[in-house]
Amino acid sequence: LAGGRLLPVRRALHALNPAEIANLLESLPPQQRKVVWEMVSPEDDGEVLLHLGEDVRTELMRQMDVHELVAAAEELDIDDLADFVEHLPETVTQQILKALDADDRARLEAVLAYEPDTAGGLMNTDTVTVRPDVTLDVVQRYLRLRGELPAHTDALFVVDRYSHYLGALPLDRILTRGETELVSGVMEREREALPASMGEERVAQRFEDADLVSAPVVDDGNRLVGRITIDDVVDVIRRDAEHKLMSLAGLDEDEDIFSPVRGAARRRAVWLGINLVTAFFASSVVDLFQGSISKVVALAVLMPVVASMGGIGGSQTLTLMIRSLALGQIGAHNWRFLLKKELAVAAINGLLWAIVVGAVALMWFHSPLLALVVGMAIVINQTIAALAGIFVPLTLHKIGIDPALAGSVILTTFTDVCGFFSLLALGTLILL
Amino acid sequence: LAGGRLLPVRRALHALNPAEIANLLESLPPQQRKVVWEMVSPEDDGEVLLHLGEDVRTELMRQMDVHELVAAAEELDIDDLADFVEHLPETVTQQILKALDADDRARLEAVLAYEPDTAGGLMNTDTVTVRPDVTLDVVQRYLRLRGELPAHTDALFVVDRYSHYLGALPLDRILTRGETELVSGVMEREREALPASMGEERVAQRFEDADLVSAPVVDDGNRLVGRITIDDVVDVIRRDAEHKLMSLAGLDEDEDIFSPVRGAARRRAVWLGINLVTAFFASSVVDLFQGSISKVVALAVLMPVVASMGGIGGSQTLTLMIRSLALGQIGAHNWRFLLKKELAVAAINGLLWAIVVGAVALMWFHSPLLALVVGMAIVINQTIAALAGIFVPLTLHKIGIDPALAGSVILTTFTDVCGFFSLLALGTLILL
Repeated sequence: LAGGRLLPVRRALHALNPAEIANLLESLPPQQRKVVWEMVSPEDDGEVLLHLGEDVRTELMRQMDVHELVAAAEELDIDDLADFVEHLPETVTQQILKALDADDRARLEAVLAYEPDTAGGLMNTDTVTVRPDVTLDVVQRYLRLRGELPAHTDALFVVDRYSHYLGALPLDRILTRGETELVSGVMEREREALPASMGEERVAQRFEDADLVSAPVVDDGNRLVGRITIDDVVDVIRRDAEHKLMSLAGLDEDEDIFSPVRGAARRRAVWLGINLVTAFFASSVVDLFQGSISKVVALAVLMPVVASMGGIGGSQTLTLMIRSLALGQIGAHNWRFLLKKELAVAAINGLLWAIVVGAVALMWFHSPLLALVVGMAIVINQTIAALAGIFVPLTLHKIGIDPALAGSVILTTFTDVCGFFSLLALGTLILL
Repeated sequence: LAGGRLLPVRRALHALNPAEIANLLESLPPQQRKVVWEMVSPEDDGEVLLHLGEDVRTELMRQMDVHELVAAAEELDIDDLADFVEHLPETVTQQILKALDADDRARLEAVLAYEPDTAGGLMNTDTVTVRPDVTLDVVQRYLRLRGELPAHTDALFVVDRYSHYLGALPLDRILTRGETELVSGVMEREREALPASMGEERVAQRFEDADLVSAPVVDDGNRLVGRITIDDVVDVIRRDAEHKLMSLAGLDEDEDIFSPVRGAARRRAVWLGINLVTAFFASSVVDLFQGSISKVVALAVLMPVVASMGGIGGSQTLTLMIRSLALGQIGAHNWRFLLKKELAVAAINGLLWAIVVGAVALMWFHSPLLALVVGMAIVINQTIAALAGIFVPLTLHKIGIDPALAGSVILTTFTDVCGFFSLLALGTLILL
């Protein structure tokens, strides 16, 4: 690419599917990204945009004019189109709605009526339905007339004349059961419909638990309004996982690795600023004991050890809690048991490492009392770390804040402040 | 449960699928877990065990005798059975192999021949194959004779008489194309087979990129040996995401939240111990400057601020790198660009927060020189944090160590050591 040989690149692009092109674009610095983006064939534009992180998508869409955006939109399925227009200015959305035929417009508006992170927002409207009182033979003739089925159709949905959902008719049953059997006798009644208002994380859980490929979505009146397919659920799972990982560092999961420096600096500055407030809080604890430190400088030397051991122990408990809360495994019935267990673990590791750190301190500074002080501080701080590791995420979860986002910074504040305080206060009491 | 009313529990259990039962078991403390596990109906035992994290599974399997284990194994698909016997002692595996009929035994041995984390280890052997030179009508009659298809069969596989893979025949094409058309004219040639040796992460990527529900697996000679289905791929994705999250805290993704205290303490002690070595390393840097600290105690007060700002900045870069390396987005062609960008971000944020911290230090300690020292230390440490955030994961990745596992501890060592050193060395030079 650097050498200006564009033809082989164009040919290589042609062999990639939209998700792979999106991944390639994300791995390119802005200049090269622009060049490659212009080589993507227009009918892939929409799909590629959808697979990009939000930052890169916004950047590329800013370079497109209205006609190109409308053209890209036209190639998309309704569910993808709903995602797509979410990111567009109102005027462009209107243009796209105008470019659609009446049926598609009605379908798109149906999906847009739901929140994007619910089953309704995730669904596609391309359901193929049959009635319960026809034979499989009739279904087969209907399908042959109809032609190709939408992607990921593993089952047709059975509805009554008022569109009420009755059950699913898996394709393999049409193929393996007798042609004269009735749909109502063959259909899978166990495949439950998802309410359109169900949150996308619960949808993902349901797909995973029941090993689904597609699931019907119904409105409040049990009327079939669409279906969700596994490919969209995989995206939800992947996005959710990225969100957890990235938000632990105060980053956004849509962050572009090559985002313009100014934007990246501004966004990260927020996190650094929050952290600075908590760091100054810890510093002010140290400040209280200036007198002790100037007399026993070894305390300043050992400060980082006590604080960092607490931070590590606490984040182990915190991480366990974040995962279990996300899986819905922690509740009123078991948090006390968990607390007891984590406190016991902290006590064992606190004692163990207190002895080690105490022994090292003894050899280093030749002061048994200092060794005692640092050992006690370690035990106290590990205990506090375990308490904070349990209660910080529980509290955040209860008041509706994502523990993965804020938990780590709050926990470290606790372990730093308590680590410094226990070491310096004990030092002042015992050594001076 | 606590009140001893077991009947409603048993009834509730009956309504759950194996994945949900597994989730429930993981959320129960050991005593209750044991009671509920005994209520799970034996035909679900195998599936439930498979959905459990390794720790809980091992605990429950220890309570089962050989007959129960063999009975649980008999209810499983071949791919699941292969996972299952991985965790069993050799003697029990032999018993299970004996209990299988010759066909199943051959299939199981075929799967066990591959590494568990490859396409071969992930695959099932329940492929339904057809020849290219028959009509769809013949295929339909064959399917009707054959009866029910394996779960997640969205396509049959077309093979020649030597079992060489030729293409896929999606069920919907059988249903929508003319009955007299030949399989060879209808089949999907684009669906590429996965080599049995392909790593499971690449398999997952392929499924996501191409939106697959099932994919054929072939051996070195392009002979069809099995197929992988989306449900197993979703498990891989979920496990991989958990692994990243948990290993950042030095935990195992299979960790049971209610694991016995002794085991949990032992495993976490390792991580605390590694951290302790690095913390002492940072302490020894502080130790070099005991003289300066006893004269200017404010340096000890500001130490945590410089170190923690570096840690935060560095882990932002590190997290971005971990994600991008996992997605294969970083390579020889772009890391230099990324380095430049991260250094620029670090410079901007370094300067910004150096001014803020300097101003606070000035108001706090009324010393312009101290403000200058801490400001310079912040700029230096943010730069080093960005360098470490890029090079630590790159180097780990290159030598084959998972950056998510070791990256964080190494990075913090860098930012602590360099933060303390830059602050204290500059303080010694300028203030004394």
